[in-house]
Amino acid sequence: MLDQFKTPKSDEIRVDSTSLRHVVRQIFIKCGVPDYQAEIGSDVLVSTDLRGVDTHGVSNMLRIYVKDYISGKLNPKPKIKIVKENISNLNIDGDNGLGILQGPDAMKLAIGKAKKTGIGVVTLFNSGHIGAVGHHAMIAADNRMVGICLTAGGTLVLPTFAAETRTGTNPISLAAPSNTYPYFLFDAAMSSIAGNKVRLVARNGTKLSSGSIADNKGNPIMESVGIETSEDFIHIPPLLPLGGNRDQGSHKGYGLSLFVEILCTILSGNVPNMIDSKGNLCHFFAAFNIDSFTEYTQFIDNMDLMLSKLLDTPSISESERVIYPGIMEFENEADRIKNGIPLHKEVVEWFDNISIEMDIDKISTF
Amino acid sequence: MLDQFKTPKSDEIRVDSTSLRHVVRQIFIKCGVPDYQAEIGSDVLVSTDLRGVDTHGVSNMLRIYVKDYISGKLNPKPKIKIVKENISNLNIDGDNGLGILQGPDAMKLAIGKAKKTGIGVVTLFNSGHIGAVGHHAMIAADNRMVGICLTAGGTLVLPTFAAETRTGTNPISLAAPSNTYPYFLFDAAMSSIAGNKVRLVARNGTKLSSGSIADNKGNPIMESVGIETSEDFIHIPPLLPLGGNRDQGSHKGYGLSLFVEILCTILSGNVPNMIDSKGNLCHFFAAFNIDSFTEYTQFIDNMDLMLSKLLDTPSISESERVIYPGIMEFENEADRIKNGIPLHKEVVEWFDNISIEMDIDKISTF
Repeated sequence: MLDQFKTPKSDEIRVDSTSLRHVVRQIFIKCGVPDYQAEIGSDVLVSTDLRGVDTHGVSNMLRIYVKDYISGKLNPKPKIKIVKENISNLNIDGDNGLGILQGPDAMKLAIGKAKKTGIGVVTLFNSGHIGAVGHHAMIAADNRMVGICLTAGGTLVLPTFAAETRTGTNPISLAAPSNTYPYFLFDAAMSSIAGNKVRLVARNGTKLSSGSIADNKGNPIMESVGIETSEDFIHIPPLLPLGGNRDQGSHKGYGLSLFVEILCTILSGNVPNMIDSKGNLCHFFAAFNIDSFTEYTQFIDNMDLMLSKLLDTPSISESERVIYPGIMEFENEADRIKNGIPLHKEVVEWFDNISIEMDIDKISTF
Repeated sequence: MLDQFKTPKSDEIRVDSTSLRHVVRQIFIKCGVPDYQAEIGSDVLVSTDLRGVDTHGVSNMLRIYVKDYISGKLNPKPKIKIVKENISNLNIDGDNGLGILQGPDAMKLAIGKAKKTGIGVVTLFNSGHIGAVGHHAMIAADNRMVGICLTAGGTLVLPTFAAETRTGTNPISLAAPSNTYPYFLFDAAMSSIAGNKVRLVARNGTKLSSGSIADNKGNPIMESVGIETSEDFIHIPPLLPLGGNRDQGSHKGYGLSLFVEILCTILSGNVPNMIDSKGNLCHFFAAFNIDSFTEYTQFIDNMDLMLSKLLDTPSISESERVIYPGIMEFENEADRIKNGIPLHKEVVEWFDNISIEMDIDKISTF
């Protein structure tokens, strides 16, 4: 993660991950979510913070989930329904449940199909925010499979040359197992930056890179830029597709966001938020059973060969190293399990307040 | 396509597409390819030129295919072999056949699986260049399915911060049917530019955009730059991943190129070219049977809603319009069927020479 997105050391409070799991679980239960689901939600969010994906952990989204449960926008006890099924796929109506609670089960259904046929695909609509999509892809990797998870929703992002936003940030993730190296885990928005990165920059008082956002007429801002913030509300400006502007390839980021929109939203029988702004989020889960394609041991050994070759690649400067997606997450996890998860003091304050409000335990700091 | 990649009008000769099909088919036959396969190869290449994807039509690659058949690198009569199969997938050894000849059949096998189970996936290794991956994805769209085609090979592209190239340009394509609008067709390299774009710029004497290539130490060149060329040989400099440099998101382009590498190469039981430079190319084909997820008519109507909304999006300037992937290709096709395919005069000269050499028909110009 670029420095501008990191919580400044002076504002950082390290929080014990076990305590955080416990408190987040209690928050979900207080919102009316059943125990089993609250456990999953807490695991998804805290695992995400442990991996260092601060944009999608407890800091930004949990307070929104709580608000949405209270307002009735989210259904704490959804009755999910299989709308259509074939030997290798399922299409599921999530009944306005929260995506982070539904994602792991959806991926497990895809894995179940893939065990029998080689491939399993599940689409899930009428669902809420799914957190870091990579978390769900990783479940497949832990089951000897390659996992893909995508999510579509929102209209924060400009098509190339557009003066109005149309697509979501629409992240793509893929996880794959390896032998001795940390698992490969790619997870990235198809906009230049995830919407939550704007919140981090606003909170940290830093700047976004060139090609991240546009001005209010849609013109790409090709220099670094700060984000104004009032106390309560961070306005998210129009985000640019991955690539920034047309010359630098924004048509590819735009096309990839539609790739995600089609597989998540239209394949599940829905229209994107640019047509219907109810906020119906749609997700896509795919599991590829490695044993159906090749020998599993050969696959993970070949992964190791590739990953080690990438790590051994000489870099352009001594201050940078060549890595692969997943390794930073692995290193963060080792550090954060031991030394705690660094949260912004403002986030810790929110937790302390909600603990009083909900009459639940407080989080333990280091 | 940006202006720098277009053949200058003064160097352009319009060629009749039917005549081009006929001549390309004869060239393949002279290379020892069976009639049925020669027909497919001619269709893939000329369809690609008709769509305006000049980088992947007859101009750049056909002469390389011919060389590779003559040198024995490509096998004109491969005996393909199913290495592993499950209900929804196949893994195929292509026996060094040319990818553009094998891709359509591979996608048809995926479609056949998807008809029965909802999803079909085929991986194909020991294969040659596959042309524009979107061509193969489109075959699924023509069969009431969403199609994905990926290909991995080569080591032209730098990982983020790397001083040496490691990954291929690794394009991703997705095609999806619509009702009254031209089909959606996304097809793009996960490097900033496809390798063939360097050849076009060199041939046209124009410049590459900022963030397309690096200097020979791996440092991203963040300004527009020309390509030196000697008569016979165009050296392809290190290409940058989509995003350009780290600040502008090159880690996403790099991650997406590994996404493709894993699904094409490692899933099919192989190692990427960064480990073994034999030039073994690997491809991935997926077909998603729309009828297994939702009603087909609803899908294509929802596609129309999205595509029309995108086309109606106000643009940042009068000289630009908001489009979606596939519409330019559709418009090009209509124009080029009628008015011919614009080839660089140097390409027409190559055709004329090979027609004499191989004792086959000449292409008809307009």
